[in-house]
Amino acid sequence: MRFDEAYSGKVFIGSCPNYGESEVVLYGMPMDWTVSYRPGSRFGPGRIREVSIGLEEYSPYLDRELKEIKYFDAGDIPLPFGNAQRSLDMIEAFVDKLLNDGKFPLGMGGEHLVSWPVMKSVYKKYPDLAVIHMDAHTDLRTEYEGEPLSHSTPIRKVAELIGPENVYSFGIRSGMKEEFQWAKENGMHISKFEVLEPLKEILPKLMNRPVYVTIDIDVLDPAHAPGTGTVDAGGITSKELLASIHEIARSEVQVIGADLVEVAPVYDASEQTANTASKLIREMLLGWVK
Amino acid sequence: MRFDEAYSGKVFIGSCPNYGESEVVLYGMPMDWTVSYRPGSRFGPGRIREVSIGLEEYSPYLDRELKEIKYFDAGDIPLPFGNAQRSLDMIEAFVDKLLNDGKFPLGMGGEHLVSWPVMKSVYKKYPDLAVIHMDAHTDLRTEYEGEPLSHSTPIRKVAELIGPENVYSFGIRSGMKEEFQWAKENGMHISKFEVLEPLKEILPKLMNRPVYVTIDIDVLDPAHAPGTGTVDAGGITSKELLASIHEIARSEVQVIGADLVEVAPVYDASEQTANTASKLIREMLLGWVK
Amino acid sequence: MRFDEAYSGKVFIGSCPNYGESEVVLYGMPMDWTVSYRPGSRFGPGRIREVSIGLEEYSPYLDRELKEIKYFDAGDIPLPFGNAQRSLDMIEAFVDKLLNDGKFPLGMGGEHLVSWPVMKSVYKKYPDLAVIHMDAHTDLRTEYEGEPLSHSTPIRKVAELIGPENVYSFGIRSGMKEEFQWAKENGMHISKFEVLEPLKEILPKLMNRPVYVTIDIDVLDPAHAPGTGTVDAGGITSKELLASIHEIARSEVQVIGADLVEVAPVYDASEQTANTASKLIREMLLGWVK
Amino acid sequence: MRFDEAYSGKVFIGSCPNYGESEVVLYGMPMDWTVSYRPGSRFGPGRIREVSIGLEEYSPYLDRELKEIKYFDAGDIPLPFGNAQRSLDMIEAFVDKLLNDGKFPLGMGGEHLVSWPVMKSVYKKYPDLAVIHMDAHTDLRTEYEGEPLSHSTPIRKVAELIGPENVYSFGIRSGMKEEFQWAKENGMHISKFEVLEPLKEILPKLMNRPVYVTIDIDVLDPAHAPGTGTVDAGGITSKELLASIHEIARSEVQVIGADLVEVAPVYDASEQTANTASKLIREMLLGWVK
Amino acid sequence: MRFDEAYSGKVFIGSCPNYGESEVVLYGMPMDWTVSYRPGSRFGPGRIREVSIGLEEYSPYLDRELKEIKYFDAGDIPLPFGNAQRSLDMIEAFVDKLLNDGKFPLGMGGEHLVSWPVMKSVYKKYPDLAVIHMDAHTDLRTEYEGEPLSHSTPIRKVAELIGPENVYSFGIRSGMKEEFQWAKENGMHISKFEVLEPLKEILPKLMNRPVYVTIDIDVLDPAHAPGTGTVDAGGITSKELLASIHEIARSEVQVIGADLVEVAPVYDASEQTANTASKLIREMLLGWVK
Amino acid sequence: MRFDEAYSGKVFIGSCPNYGESEVVLYGMPMDWTVSYRPGSRFGPGRIREVSIGLEEYSPYLDRELKEIKYFDAGDIPLPFGNAQRSLDMIEAFVDKLLNDGKFPLGMGGEHLVSWPVMKSVYKKYPDLAVIHMDAHTDLRTEYEGEPLSHSTPIRKVAELIGPENVYSFGIRSGMKEEFQWAKENGMHISKFEVLEPLKEILPKLMNRPVYVTIDIDVLDPAHAPGTGTVDAGGITSKELLASIHEIARSEVQVIGADLVEVAPVYDASEQTANTASKLIREMLLGWVK
Repeated sequence: MRFDEAYSGKVFIGSCPNYGESEVVLYGMPMDWTVSYRPGSRFGPGRIREVSIGLEEYSPYLDRELKEIKYFDAGDIPLPFGNAQRSLDMIEAFVDKLLNDGKFPLGMGGEHLVSWPVMKSVYKKYPDLAVIHMDAHTDLRTEYEGEPLSHSTPIRKVAELIGPENVYSFGIRSGMKEEFQWAKENGMHISKFEVLEPLKEILPKLMNRPVYVTIDIDVLDPAHAPGTGTVDAGGITSKELLASIHEIARSEVQVIGADLVEVAPVYDASEQTANTASKLIREMLLGWVK
Repeated sequence: MRFDEAYSGKVFIGSCPNYGESEVVLYGMPMDWTVSYRPGSRFGPGRIREVSIGLEEYSPYLDRELKEIKYFDAGDIPLPFGNAQRSLDMIEAFVDKLLNDGKFPLGMGGEHLVSWPVMKSVYKKYPDLAVIHMDAHTDLRTEYEGEPLSHSTPIRKVAELIGPENVYSFGIRSGMKEEFQWAKENGMHISKFEVLEPLKEILPKLMNRPVYVTIDIDVLDPAHAPGTGTVDAGGITSKELLASIHEIARSEVQVIGADLVEVAPVYDASEQTANTASKLIREMLLGWVK
Repeated sequence: MRFDEAYSGKVFIGSCPNYGESEVVLYGMPMDWTVSYRPGSRFGPGRIREVSIGLEEYSPYLDRELKEIKYFDAGDIPLPFGNAQRSLDMIEAFVDKLLNDGKFPLGMGGEHLVSWPVMKSVYKKYPDLAVIHMDAHTDLRTEYEGEPLSHSTPIRKVAELIGPENVYSFGIRSGMKEEFQWAKENGMHISKFEVLEPLKEILPKLMNRPVYVTIDIDVLDPAHAPGTGTVDAGGITSKELLASIHEIARSEVQVIGADLVEVAPVYDASEQTANTASKLIREMLLGWVK
Repeated sequence: MRFDEAYSGKVFIGSCPNYGESEVVLYGMPMDWTVSYRPGSRFGPGRIREVSIGLEEYSPYLDRELKEIKYFDAGDIPLPFGNAQRSLDMIEAFVDKLLNDGKFPLGMGGEHLVSWPVMKSVYKKYPDLAVIHMDAHTDLRTEYEGEPLSHSTPIRKVAELIGPENVYSFGIRSGMKEEFQWAKENGMHISKFEVLEPLKEILPKLMNRPVYVTIDIDVLDPAHAPGTGTVDAGGITSKELLASIHEIARSEVQVIGADLVEVAPVYDASEQTANTASKLIREMLLGWVK
Repeated sequence: MRFDEAYSGKVFIGSCPNYGESEVVLYGMPMDWTVSYRPGSRFGPGRIREVSIGLEEYSPYLDRELKEIKYFDAGDIPLPFGNAQRSLDMIEAFVDKLLNDGKFPLGMGGEHLVSWPVMKSVYKKYPDLAVIHMDAHTDLRTEYEGEPLSHSTPIRKVAELIGPENVYSFGIRSGMKEEFQWAKENGMHISKFEVLEPLKEILPKLMNRPVYVTIDIDVLDPAHAPGTGTVDAGGITSKELLASIHEIARSEVQVIGADLVEVAPVYDASEQTANTASKLIREMLLGWVK
Repeated sequence: MRFDEAYSGKVFIGSCPNYGESEVVLYGMPMDWTVSYRPGSRFGPGRIREVSIGLEEYSPYLDRELKEIKYFDAGDIPLPFGNAQRSLDMIEAFVDKLLNDGKFPLGMGGEHLVSWPVMKSVYKKYPDLAVIHMDAHTDLRTEYEGEPLSHSTPIRKVAELIGPENVYSFGIRSGMKEEFQWAKENGMHISKFEVLEPLKEILPKLMNRPVYVTIDIDVLDPAHAPGTGTVDAGGITSKELLASIHEIARSEVQVIGADLVEVAPVYDASEQTANTASKLIREMLLGWVK
């Protein structure tokens, strides 16, 4: 007696009704309390689901349809407003459970700090983990205005956990001088400004390794993603980001989880960022879940 | 394994998970294809649900909590875009089923024409039906630019079906001269401009009768409901509309179904109209479902 | 072979095609170059016309229809950007012509300074002119930051021209101390905060006199008219403004011209101000043109 | 006595006052009732005209001025809201008349379904017609949710009418698997993702043939055209679309009519899409009308 | 060599350049990390300052000018993003300093939780403190989703600190049943829905007592303050709120500090809320600082 | 006792507190009264400062930090609204003073006409001045609708002052036929459509010459700068504009002053244009001040 949930914008289009039968679990991490500039990404996952009804279920890029994959949309994790530590703990516990059940975790943020507990969880299962990170910002601070739990720190944290040499950042065009220096001195890969071309060089090195991919929507130029907390001019186009997703799809890399973060609907005047994010989620599903 | 649906904006806050156990069914009628001015109300029900998470579940007006009522949110009826007749048929069939199952139908529009098949269905069950109509517009046209299925016609249709003397319009401040004349000549009640005071006079006359209440959000002044298709200055305040809902709640009238229509999110810059609509739905639930 | 112009938003709804046969001429004065705060009212007249298609042609307040009056929409006067003096000269010449041809001038601004040349022109024809002024602001400055041609000065200019005792301001809630003092010392009437009640007292005194009415849309509270250059909290409702227009309509005052100014579409997120303005224009036409 | 109409945003800049003397007729088709996602394109033609005042009349791309062409702006066809069939009939009759009078039809939508009756009409005059179609979407469905009259079907309809081998689609990045298959199996040309380069290859094949060009503004990336119903990331830039228009202008193809559809002002926060559309119309006029 | 700071929107209009000579200190508390619904009030103080340039410096309500008072605009306290406890500590330390220096603290939020450390600080200086609280919400929770530091708790905290019988809430229209019960059982005053009339009754009881006034902008109806985190229909008008401020100004109450919180510019489509807030700040200064 | 001014959005991030010690002076020219289309750029400088808090102080493009340069933010020049001539005089006097004190002038508009008095002043000091101009528009008119002081004329004025052969325009895609002809006939350089590639050719010719660079933000495509008065499709990307700034930085050209004009916040729905402008200012500082 209930109408199709995707039609009502309740779940991501094409998702299956049962957790048990799913290969992939799509989930929201509606946290934005540590951002230093414009908050609002807590509403990102909800809006991405809502606009997914406008998507076709077929990808002409990958010649694949959503019905070929079983994914369950778990909704948003009910995080405690303003408490970063408890929020991160809840996310980690949730992803632990997913991995334990053999699911592919596909997360939607929320601010970028939410990726940190996910990667921690993934690393427990995959000790030879590599991370591909697409972003405008280095996110390599140790703290921000005295706070170690900040949206500016997740990549530093994961680099220290899994080794900086296992983290590959692309599209970076903003950060403190010290962050770039730390990366250089510690053997962490940073491709400034560009994504697709350097990715083509790096992917062969990661062949057969388990890779977690974290995409901050602000790797896109503000023209392509105005609806995010911290826009930064000079970014890549959505065409280039789609091509980068497809490049990974066609590589020998074994993607074992991914996220897309920092969509902030209140700054997304025409809903273009949410629409773009929903297409990116579709391509991540179709390209990375074999 | 799925998180609370209201938290993710998927269902109206506090709704129960099963159709079977519910007294009330909340449903969306996402149709806007016959509007003559600004479309967009198809997205009304979805946005009302989404923002309902911002509501408290308790009404200090009625001293009652949502948990005292069992209501099921059925989502949106999947209406065929651009086909008015088929859409109306689907709505009528759906409400027939609800009434057959003993449910209280609480609908969300969509354009006002969606109320027509609902009232048709309700009339089949309640032959002594009266209708209370709150709106800026008469909606008494027989057709609009040659189209008999138009958002300008639902009250005329129901008046012809159940008898004009059983229809009571309030807050009306816009219409053709002919519409006002038709009402006058046919014994239909129209209170121009005001709602609360004339309602107090009329309610005693409807004592113990089954009443369907249809509220067009544009009965509110544009200051209180900018997010609707056809705004019209000089309307009532949300305080007055709340008081009118409470007046009905305290009366001897037997409300047997209701709707709230014409919320158009794309014109609702600050989401105030959707937030107001979600509060009105709460008060309608708490006040009218005994 | 050309479709109805009102349908395409080209002219105000119901206007007649020929200047010659018209009693009233509706015209735009798209000037906003002297405003001290937020510009944008140059686009006001165009947007008011465009949204007029959403109006009914009948007023249930006055029981009168637009077809009972012949009015011609002349479009916008092509004012030279950034040159206040030349703009004012062009407006004055245009209104001189209208008055010479026996037309009722009904202007749409634009910033309030545009009313000054109109009133100058009107005064040449009607030496016993009185002015009714509804506004949030006194507009009684002699200059602004050294500029005598400023949106803060038109009422001072007209008061000095026709005598302060012939100017009646209503709804005023903002101004310099000196402006209020000047009015007091010079016998000019100012009703602070309110419009309708003081208007009822003043109207009998103006019986049979020719009166020009100039309405700054910001006399409305920002809730009712967000789309204007200088919003100021604590204003009247659109219901009260409508009632004030109707009060004048029912009085013995002889309105011989009027304007509505300061609608700024770019600040009118939901187009509510433009819609309200188009309804006010309709009521001014139906109420003041006998 | 009426001011210049383009100045007031009433007609497209530079248009001539008489139908009789014109070579080209510009007209609006304000229909959006069959769209499956976001409505609002009914207001597209009006806004395109309004912002055209911001255009220069000279094209530095084509070294040609608007005054070299005589075009008449007929306004918007007054289509019956919510009735798709009657709307299409009215459009077809109007274009029949234009073609009979020897005019070049240049239409502005409205949803893409409006192109169907135009192309039907054009085909009656030009039996060897070819169609160039630029769009993000295939528009090759036979029906949508049971409706054969849907914004997802116009290209299928014209392909079946004039033969799929005479239809050339460019820039396509969204559709059902079945649509792409149907095109392939039936010899219809689809260039996925790109426009300019494949166009260069196709144009020589169409030498001297009468060609109708239909452009859905969503062929542009959402960064370049946020103001449309269904945005889809990964599109072309406005620079590329301009170059494509110029490529056709310089080819031996005989353009005999064209349209630009799907501009939806309510989603066009900064009016950039309407401004871009008005420039595209200028270039189509200057490039395609010899 | 620096231009007037208010002109550039840097400080609140009319503020004096030196802390030392000031009677009042105006300061921002840009914190929004514990809000449960829509964040963004961190940008409130900045926007209020910026739009203050649109204000007149004279109040026709109080017949007083800003130059009669010396107030210093200290800017925003640089709070650590996402750390509620440290933020509150910094605010308390800052206000301790102000009070020690004999200043009148006039704060701008930020979420309502920022008022808690201010009131704590004020209570240290004034042990017979009473609090006047105007708000849509009770804010009497002990915690929210497990968090004791939440925007839903400040009034509970202050009530427990200074005694519930010393806290007077007005305009309340939202809260949990338990919150209303707690207030009732503990002798705390709550006026539901209304502000001005109950305030007139309460003020004589507070004669000569030191009173801190905390105003949540959402006590206003969403029509009057759309730009806030949690809008709730049925509120008071800005006219009523102004009258309430003036009522306090004319009473025998000794206001010793105040704040205005929860202005969220990103939801303030036309900047009306910020403009209203800046006028409220002016009236608070002119009315409450003797 | 005052908090950091950049934190409160009062001054551009990283600016130094004293005029005396500065090498560069950043200043706003908040004038928009002669624009022919959409006004609003008067608020540009303020918003650019405000959002600069979101910038990193390090440029990964130039490997340089803001702290390496001493610049003072003087605020906005208090220009008289609506008086173009007096405004230009004030700007010229201010820049005369800066140059006299040995400062590098870095201006923010405001409409493009503000660059004219700046360049006049600069030319007095540098008689062998060359001008690099990046813009969508030629700005070579002698007057606009009879006004010689118009936003369409500044480049013509400077070309006539310093000789057309010393003016180099890039990215031009809009203008009257006569403007392009005048440039051609008078030896002024215009690169149509492109900036970076032609700039590479021109820069060597300007080696060691003093160069003033004036950038109209609308040289960017509307996708990259929707927040400006006159958008024009087919522009360059922000990536290309950044590269152009860096190309100049790496050349032998001696930049002796610069400006960035035409940012209009009210059309900048997501604040992306202001954010981009603040990054451009940072790169201009880091790249052009040696």
